[in-house]
Amino acid sequence: MNVQNPIRPGVATGAIPGSRKVHQVGSLWPDIRVPFREVAVHPSANEPPVTLYDPSGPYTDPAIEIDINRGLPRTREPWVVSRGDVEIVSNPRQVRPEDNGGASGVHLAPAFDTPRRVYRARSGATVTQLEYARRGIITPEMEYVAIRENLRRQASDPTLRDGEDFGAAIPDFVTPEFVRDEIARGRAIIPANINHTELEPMAIGRNFLVKVNANIGNSAVLSTVADEVDKMVWAIRWGADTVMDLSTGRNIHNIRDWIVRNSPVPIGTVPIYQALEKVGGVAEDLNWDVFRDTLIEQAEQGVDYFTIHAGVRLAYIPLTAKRVTGIVSRGGSILAKWCLAHHRENFLYEHFEDICEIMRAYDVSFSLGDGLRPGCLADANDAAQFAELETLGELTRVAWKHGVQTMIEGPGHVPMHKIKANMDKQLEVCGEAPFYTLGPLTTDVAPGYDHITSAIGAAMIGWFGTAMLCYVTPKEHLGLPDRKDVKDGVIAYRIAAHAADLAKGHPAARAWDDALSRARFEFRWEDQFNLGMDPETARAYHDESLPKEAFKTAHFCSMCGPKFCSMKISQEIRDAAAAQNDVAEGMADMARRFRDGGGEVYVPTGVPTRE
Amino acid sequence: MNVQNPIRPGVATGAIPGSRKVHQVGSLWPDIRVPFREVAVHPSANEPPVTLYDPSGPYTDPAIEIDINRGLPRTREPWVVSRGDVEIVSNPRQVRPEDNGGASGVHLAPAFDTPRRVYRARSGATVTQLEYARRGIITPEMEYVAIRENLRRQASDPTLRDGEDFGAAIPDFVTPEFVRDEIARGRAIIPANINHTELEPMAIGRNFLVKVNANIGNSAVLSTVADEVDKMVWAIRWGADTVMDLSTGRNIHNIRDWIVRNSPVPIGTVPIYQALEKVGGVAEDLNWDVFRDTLIEQAEQGVDYFTIHAGVRLAYIPLTAKRVTGIVSRGGSILAKWCLAHHRENFLYEHFEDICEIMRAYDVSFSLGDGLRPGCLADANDAAQFAELETLGELTRVAWKHGVQTMIEGPGHVPMHKIKANMDKQLEVCGEAPFYTLGPLTTDVAPGYDHITSAIGAAMIGWFGTAMLCYVTPKEHLGLPDRKDVKDGVIAYRIAAHAADLAKGHPAARAWDDALSRARFEFRWEDQFNLGMDPETARAYHDESLPKEAFKTAHFCSMCGPKFCSMKISQEIRDAAAAQNDVAEGMADMARRFRDGGGEVYVPTGVPTRE
Repeated sequence: MNVQNPIRPGVATGAIPGSRKVHQVGSLWPDIRVPFREVAVHPSANEPPVTLYDPSGPYTDPAIEIDINRGLPRTREPWVVSRGDVEIVSNPRQVRPEDNGGASGVHLAPAFDTPRRVYRARSGATVTQLEYARRGIITPEMEYVAIRENLRRQASDPTLRDGEDFGAAIPDFVTPEFVRDEIARGRAIIPANINHTELEPMAIGRNFLVKVNANIGNSAVLSTVADEVDKMVWAIRWGADTVMDLSTGRNIHNIRDWIVRNSPVPIGTVPIYQALEKVGGVAEDLNWDVFRDTLIEQAEQGVDYFTIHAGVRLAYIPLTAKRVTGIVSRGGSILAKWCLAHHRENFLYEHFEDICEIMRAYDVSFSLGDGLRPGCLADANDAAQFAELETLGELTRVAWKHGVQTMIEGPGHVPMHKIKANMDKQLEVCGEAPFYTLGPLTTDVAPGYDHITSAIGAAMIGWFGTAMLCYVTPKEHLGLPDRKDVKDGVIAYRIAAHAADLAKGHPAARAWDDALSRARFEFRWEDQFNLGMDPETARAYHDESLPKEAFKTAHFCSMCGPKFCSMKISQEIRDAAAAQNDVAEGMADMARRFRDGGGEVYVPTGVPTRE
Repeated sequence: MNVQNPIRPGVATGAIPGSRKVHQVGSLWPDIRVPFREVAVHPSANEPPVTLYDPSGPYTDPAIEIDINRGLPRTREPWVVSRGDVEIVSNPRQVRPEDNGGASGVHLAPAFDTPRRVYRARSGATVTQLEYARRGIITPEMEYVAIRENLRRQASDPTLRDGEDFGAAIPDFVTPEFVRDEIARGRAIIPANINHTELEPMAIGRNFLVKVNANIGNSAVLSTVADEVDKMVWAIRWGADTVMDLSTGRNIHNIRDWIVRNSPVPIGTVPIYQALEKVGGVAEDLNWDVFRDTLIEQAEQGVDYFTIHAGVRLAYIPLTAKRVTGIVSRGGSILAKWCLAHHRENFLYEHFEDICEIMRAYDVSFSLGDGLRPGCLADANDAAQFAELETLGELTRVAWKHGVQTMIEGPGHVPMHKIKANMDKQLEVCGEAPFYTLGPLTTDVAPGYDHITSAIGAAMIGWFGTAMLCYVTPKEHLGLPDRKDVKDGVIAYRIAAHAADLAKGHPAARAWDDALSRARFEFRWEDQFNLGMDPETARAYHDESLPKEAFKTAHFCSMCGPKFCSMKISQEIRDAAAAQNDVAEGMADMARRFRDGGGEVYVPTGVPTRE
């Protein structure tokens, strides 16, 4: 339907410096190959390599040739088909001009042209991971996730548990059965549309590693297809676990096709954005038919989770009238406008069971949107926000009844002392369905730095139990993120997520920090760079101070210079202490013995005491 | 003493965009003029200007001509002299070659040549703010601080208290008497050497606004005088409340002179660094005489607080031997090496009362150093760290006995779940003396991003009661910060400090956020930039998306474009709701009334429903 030449967007490929892609195969499902990022350390360390979680997909695997025009390998397709409960859609929905906002000619983004089959559940079937889990079935997706969460630790490995988990139930070792049980009780989800067979499955749940979502997407103002695919690949390269395509302008359909076909991570969308586009941007003209059509369009494309703002009920809208910043969710405000204009209950709330019926036929997961989230500290934890949250709890139970996987979106802007109440209330009213929060931002006063204002809140709410953190970039409130902003946002949120895992005492979390700290103490500079979240930046910063290669093995830091190096002195102390044979013995005794013997600590050990 | 031409380092001057310098005069002391940064908002807002705390000094005051070679005006000199308890030092210590590390010729940084008088206490006198406070004297410094902390709020202004302060005693309004009382009981300090008369006094204490320190300083490897003065001015421009000069290479004395004479904020140092330089960098050769000489040298220069690692006791050193990263404090490791080499108790501990006698003669405050702070998560809250903290509590009581103002340094690297224990223990063992922490970093794995890993911990420990946060820059662990790093570090820490003030419910904190949020909601873009922590960056980011001037008043954001703007829709909702006359009335009733009347909400109010 499009005669333009296919685009060839450039995306970043190749391994992260110092890392290599490794795989672990399944036991129950021997054809699954779970990817990890392995960082080897210098032989002098006499340590095994460090295994890191790796959502970056085939792009960081030199063994795989990337062709954006073909899309990623459809590895999951046999898994989906072999379950015997799906059918090929003989008459998939055809793309219509309004799907791309009426774009035409040179303004129409090229279609993704590589053909594929479209699947849906056989009549009456529920093809969700939740349904399988309830039936006691461990799917390949579940074993994949179990292997992935263990980071190549073995069940027999010693486990360090040091944290406060606020009542979570993180196991020492994740078994496929544990995953199945968490999915069955709704405490975790594996967003995995049967039409997104390029997916490398991942889990979102309080008892798994904390995940990070990155938002991309064009707008009526800015951005192109190539930029968005590039941003998706860039976001997962630095650690985004899922990506939401929040496009709102033209070409929504075609951009999404390119993204889904090339994405190894779950893709989320907010279908109301495209539905609104289809009715010319007039909120009052939205209706169930156009929304339903959009759900099917996107479910057939392979979108893994939908933000549905069904909790913005008519009765809650007046609760926002005296807020400082009213309704700041785009979806929330669109629906509020619809409700007010018609003076009717939100049609997404009224059609919620119809929506469930569609989503369970493709295993699209709910991300129940917090359309009434606070947009500033003054509005945090107010009546509107918590009224909606209670409705999201009610809708969670409806979704579960229909077998649809569900997570819950959360705020927003919240001062530190009001963060925990959000988590506690969510756990209480939503039956431990995974919480998925935007930040929260802990102050309103730093536009340009909201990746930091919000990383503070994100780390805390992640610690308290949030399963996935939606990143905020430095451009928040100011503009659409570019490539640099995407990376800055993802890394700030990887920091928050990992800090949360550490504080929860996740047994797979601390080994990474300890390996890097040992490298730091032993002046293994290359190891310190390679083990860092961003090896390129760490190396570049070190090079600014000490650019010479020789300094990469120097036994001092660029901060202090050789004479004052605390790490160096500290190593001498350790050596000296070790030479005493009994470190645990009281120092007073040691000193007396030394004084008695006229001893000089460094003389007998031969450790140099001067530079 | 130096024949080179005076240097003229370039420093940033001029107002922060959108701000102007205003002053409030004293009541008890009419000659004090306390500076603030005032941000006026657009007349359409019909709001008073916002007053922000302003540590940037005369550099942001267009009315004052800056001449780095002359130094800042010595405003405090009459205050100091008029107390009648100081004398001019007739034979001040003369600069010796070793004070500058033996630098000579072209390698010797020029001396700061503008002459000044050197003061010390008359024989036997204690000239500290603590001593005055105990005697019931409200000094100009105390009234200055009281005015400063109120941010031009009046005692009669309505007070918003919304926070959790963990037992702090933050008043609704800060009176000079409250400041005096906090100083007298040791719960706050005003670092203000009688020889640093260029100072604009500020307070560090749990019941005042949370403060931020920025470290600068050259090393044996890098950096020049001009760079350091520029960094000091740059750091306070973005909000550093104190600056530590951690220089360790040559020219330490001369660099410090330039910094102190041009600094309106308290300057802290770690005298052991210079003492070590004087003994050729050999820790074992350190002794009381050279240390004492260094204290007097720096006290006469006007350094406001000294980090003294007197808590690194001999008996604690073996407790660090099995740590992952040993001793990471430079001062701590130097003293540990000295202790081990001599097998003697730390001479700073043994001479602690002698140190007090010197410091009380100039009102230099203690910053009792945490030489055994953890350098990685694995070492957090261990026996070595807490043993030292208990000794710091013991030393606090000794310092107080001698009338010396005291604060306590804290960690370091600490996972989130172990942060509060640090604060609780410090409050308990140090009698509520102000806590001054480095971060803490909440994960070890993000070199290049440690301003973020640590801003998370800093915000939390600030909330829990820490009085001042020592910044960490993106270069931490990798190199010395440059100008960009200094700004990034300061802003990350201003965010952390303000987030802490908000969570504590500081009555002067929230007005800023609310003013910015109202500007955001009302699309007052210029106000949003100007009220931001960094107006230049906020504006630049917005310009990247919507560069045209017209968009600065556009009633939509660059993120969504005009059709999808949630703020715009939300305003329409507010207008519509207001038109109903009774927002509080149940929406169901409203809807019924509207349906009964066939009403269309926007028709009667005339609000446009389309773009």
